[in-house]
Amino acid sequence: MPHSKTPIAGNGLLDRRLFLQTGLALSLAPIVVQASYRPDYMSLPGAPLNPYGKPSNFEDKVTRGGISSQPGTMGSGASRTPLQHLQGTMTPSGLHFERHHAGIPDIDPDQHTLTVHGKVRQPLRFSLHNLGRYPMVTFTKFLECSGNSAAALSEEALDVDCSRIHGLVSQSEWTGVPVSYLLDEAGLDPSAQWVIAEGADAPMMNRSIPLEKMLDDAIVALYQNGERIRPEQGYPMRLFLPGFEGNASVKWLHRLEVSDIPAMSRQETSKYTDRRSDGRSEVFTFEMSVKSTITSPSPGLQLTEKGIYQITGLAWSGRGAIRSVEVSADGGKSWAEAELVTEPGVQALTRFRIPWHWQGQPAVIVSRARDDQGVQPSRDEWLAKQGSESFYHYNATQAWRIDERGQAKNVYL
Amino acid sequence: MPHSKTPIAGNGLLDRRLFLQTGLALSLAPIVVQASYRPDYMSLPGAPLNPYGKPSNFEDKVTRGGISSQPGTMGSGASRTPLQHLQGTMTPSGLHFERHHAGIPDIDPDQHTLTVHGKVRQPLRFSLHNLGRYPMVTFTKFLECSGNSAAALSEEALDVDCSRIHGLVSQSEWTGVPVSYLLDEAGLDPSAQWVIAEGADAPMMNRSIPLEKMLDDAIVALYQNGERIRPEQGYPMRLFLPGFEGNASVKWLHRLEVSDIPAMSRQETSKYTDRRSDGRSEVFTFEMSVKSTITSPSPGLQLTEKGIYQITGLAWSGRGAIRSVEVSADGGKSWAEAELVTEPGVQALTRFRIPWHWQGQPAVIVSRARDDQGVQPSRDEWLAKQGSESFYHYNATQAWRIDERGQAKNVYL
Repeated sequence: MPHSKTPIAGNGLLDRRLFLQTGLALSLAPIVVQASYRPDYMSLPGAPLNPYGKPSNFEDKVTRGGISSQPGTMGSGASRTPLQHLQGTMTPSGLHFERHHAGIPDIDPDQHTLTVHGKVRQPLRFSLHNLGRYPMVTFTKFLECSGNSAAALSEEALDVDCSRIHGLVSQSEWTGVPVSYLLDEAGLDPSAQWVIAEGADAPMMNRSIPLEKMLDDAIVALYQNGERIRPEQGYPMRLFLPGFEGNASVKWLHRLEVSDIPAMSRQETSKYTDRRSDGRSEVFTFEMSVKSTITSPSPGLQLTEKGIYQITGLAWSGRGAIRSVEVSADGGKSWAEAELVTEPGVQALTRFRIPWHWQGQPAVIVSRARDDQGVQPSRDEWLAKQGSESFYHYNATQAWRIDERGQAKNVYL
Repeated sequence: MPHSKTPIAGNGLLDRRLFLQTGLALSLAPIVVQASYRPDYMSLPGAPLNPYGKPSNFEDKVTRGGISSQPGTMGSGASRTPLQHLQGTMTPSGLHFERHHAGIPDIDPDQHTLTVHGKVRQPLRFSLHNLGRYPMVTFTKFLECSGNSAAALSEEALDVDCSRIHGLVSQSEWTGVPVSYLLDEAGLDPSAQWVIAEGADAPMMNRSIPLEKMLDDAIVALYQNGERIRPEQGYPMRLFLPGFEGNASVKWLHRLEVSDIPAMSRQETSKYTDRRSDGRSEVFTFEMSVKSTITSPSPGLQLTEKGIYQITGLAWSGRGAIRSVEVSADGGKSWAEAELVTEPGVQALTRFRIPWHWQGQPAVIVSRARDDQGVQPSRDEWLAKQGSESFYHYNATQAWRIDERGQAKNVYL
């Protein structure tokens, strides 16, 4: 009876294939005893057809959360995807996390151009119309801020929800023109080693990208989830670098300067560098590591009665595809393999799930994901390796404690 | 020189691998000659972070089009996805096509339930909370109205755009609970053959679904593109039947009645049946066939000068995955194989593309898709087989004529 309700790991974790059995009688639904409910909307005509839809008013609390901006500004900060309210793997464009350095520019697409210059045979200027004549590629990838999950570095575990800790990651289908086609058309000088990408926002945010990455899989993204990319994602065009920290995928892209040296700009020296315990800083640490989080149950979601629930969450890696995810319900003493609900894509969010019999007792749930290069470290392991001065690229495991009322809270193991 | 600019089929179709060559100097972009443009938004702070985003105001013409309703009503009709303005394969939820029979009910999710009854051991009633305790599956699939493309059945070719002909198809990531789990929990009677699905809209729209399909891959969908499904897509829950005509995936689902016979309801007798030339009607013709359309160039999009463009479009089949797509630029006299830009998913929209050297002369462009069961028929072949009284499930090839000014128009071959 491998698929029975007998736990396969501590504190009630059940076999991931449990629901494949028929006639299991799990009794997760009440039996019908009363007459059917008949509201007005079953007799009267409803709302009309409309040109551009939006979510139900009953979902008005499902928004980007944790909106924070520098004092005195309205757009120099971040907003976070409400991961705990989502299922599947895609992020609706309206809920994609934001990170801006001086707000969202209101760009007229007919005026905007992308200039490719520097160490090239001939500088070129591309309009949106010109770019539309090149072949485009389409892929579904996550984008993650390298500061994501750093809330879990605070000395005491913060009493915040999943979005507030991990909500600087989102996933979209991106469509755009490979940067390699544009560089090829301009003609690279033999001395070319870096490409400095600059945005058309007020700070003209810029980053230096290794030429190798630009020729490999970088795109100038023009479409997000089928439509033109959203203003807060760089309308009308952004750089998109699969697996790299979000900041490097420069938004409102208007300039690519081919160079033999990096720019050593503010966002790759003062910010977005990894401070080590010896006081030195490591620069150009672009790649995001393997990570996972349990999105349900999690703070703000309520277990209402004892019985079977699904523990579910997301796993991802900038280094490739997710190989497996394990879950523990006893704070890491024992682990069981979760089901990967969606086929793990390269640099893509992967949904995992495992059934859990909650007995109404306290429990500590935690997930750990594995990619080709290894497994997520514990918080202590991460700190021992990276040092307590580090802030970016935090990818340790992170736990929720479920209390006897069925409420979840962020805890350190 | 297989990848040269030498055409591989009539009227300028080029090899799909053309852009893989380096140093090709296609000259699709002007060379930089003047100083850089410097708008206000490159000096002044932009718009703030916001809780739920929307497209740029510059995209305000990209909306659901062809909104039509029965006389005297506002919500008994359809709206269409603007396929000609989209790239990639996903449809933003706000642009998913609509088809309602009495508008969109405003359903309180805390009051809504799904009742499973009829030929079962015990009738059950599921709240949204109960359903959330079952395992969910996630897949990316198209949904298509069986009346899609019927505009191409009119005697003369209509002077309309791609959306107006083919815009009753859209694609989302859907997440929900397999119907099989719910039927298993209720316990099927040996006489069970059909499941009658009913919506909570005013007409209580209902359809009879073969039990086999319900046990195979049907889900009660709760999430669309990561968030709760949209009101116009059945909030808070809809049936989703992969590959079947859209009408059968009953929205605002509140009742599943297991039966030994079908209901023979209005929407499966008077409507959504296939009238044959002998005057008889075929019922329960659920599966959508293989189809494709060129989305660009297409009416409303303008070729501005001679040179290389990408012909691109979408192909899909309710019977499985797309195997190949061919494109002709000489009205079907010669064909060349297009590149499949995205991995063809089962019952999923697949993006295709082929480069084309437009010489400024008139041309007739057309695509034909192939799945495991065959190739799209021509309009004449479809009419010869289905008869001129048919309306639903039209899947013939469809052509655009490009004139010497670079404007596209719907034509019959």
